[in-house]
Amino acid sequence: MNFSIESQPSEALKAVFRRHASGVSVITMTGENLRPVGFTATSMTSLGSNPALASFNVASGSSTWAPLNVATHVAIHTLGIQNTQLAQKMAAASELRFLDDDWERGPRDLPIFREASGVLIAKIREIHSVEANAVVIVEIEEGLLGAECEPLVYHQRAYKTAVEVD
Amino acid sequence: MNFSIESQPSEALKAVFRRHASGVSVITMTGENLRPVGFTATSMTSLGSNPALASFNVASGSSTWAPLNVATHVAIHTLGIQNTQLAQKMAAASELRFLDDDWERGPRDLPIFREASGVLIAKIREIHSVEANAVVIVEIEEGLLGAECEPLVYHQRAYKTAVEVD
Repeated sequence: MNFSIESQPSEALKAVFRRHASGVSVITMTGENLRPVGFTATSMTSLGSNPALASFNVASGSSTWAPLNVATHVAIHTLGIQNTQLAQKMAAASELRFLDDDWERGPRDLPIFREASGVLIAKIREIHSVEANAVVIVEIEEGLLGAECEPLVYHQRAYKTAVEVD
Repeated sequence: MNFSIESQPSEALKAVFRRHASGVSVITMTGENLRPVGFTATSMTSLGSNPALASFNVASGSSTWAPLNVATHVAIHTLGIQNTQLAQKMAAASELRFLDDDWERGPRDLPIFREASGVLIAKIREIHSVEANAVVIVEIEEGLLGAECEPLVYHQRAYKTAVEVD
C-alpha cells in the first residue's frame, strides 16, 4: 500500500482530518436571563428521521458548556456561502458573537440568525460525555426554511463551498 | 424573519439537511471469519484530539450492525474526489462491496481501500444506542496517510468537492 504511517494518535487524527471536509452549522441557545449563547459546529449530523434526531459535539471546556447543561432547546442553523462571516464570528471571542443586528428571538426565545439557510428547533435529549467532549443528541420539533443556496463547507481551516465534480 | 415554517419534524429535518453538506468516509471492519464489512458514512467527525477520538453513526437495521457489535476495531477512510465510485459502491448492495481488487488487509486485518486519501485505525470504545440508530465512539491508534487531494463532499444526494469561495 502507498500510505505513510503516522503512529502518534493525535498527529494521525490531525493529518487524516486535513483530508476530510465538513458542513458548517451554528448552534444557539439561551443562557441565564435569556442571554444568547452559541457557537460554530462542524460536527452536526443527522441521527435518524423517525423520530427526527440530530447530534453535535461540544468541548466541556468551551464557553457553551455551562449554558448547554441547563438549556432545554437549541436552534441548529445550516449555513450557506453567504454566511462565512457568521461562521467566523461564532467561532471567535464569545463576547462578540451577538453584538450585531443579524439575529432575533424565534421559537422558544432562541436566538435565530436571519441569514441562515435553514434552522432546526430541537429539544435536548441527551448529553453524553466522553473524556473532555460530549455528544449532544437532540430531537427536532420544527424547521425554519430559508432560501436554498450553496452550502458552506470547512476544509483545511478554510471556508469553502461544494461544487459538482466534472 | 424570512423563513417558511415546516412544523412536521421529519420533513423539517429532511428540508434543512438539503441545505447542509457533509464529508464522506468509508468505515470497514472484520466480521466472523475475517469477513470484510463496511459502509459509506457521512456522519464521521472528530471528538477531541487528546485522547484522539472520532465518532460516527450507524443504523441498527443496517447490515453493519451485527458485525459492529462484535468487532474491536474499525478503519475509517477519508475520501477524495477520486473515490466517488468507492463511496457509491459502499453505500449500495452489501454483497458487492468487497468484490473488486481495490482493497487489502492492513493493521489488525482490517480491510483497507488503497485509493483512500487517509485511514484512521481505531479501537471501538462505546456504542451508544439512540432509538433506531447508534453513535459509535472510537479511539485512534494510528493513521495511514495517502496523497492530499480534493475532498469528497455529499450534498443534495450528489457527490461533490470543496472549492474556495471567491
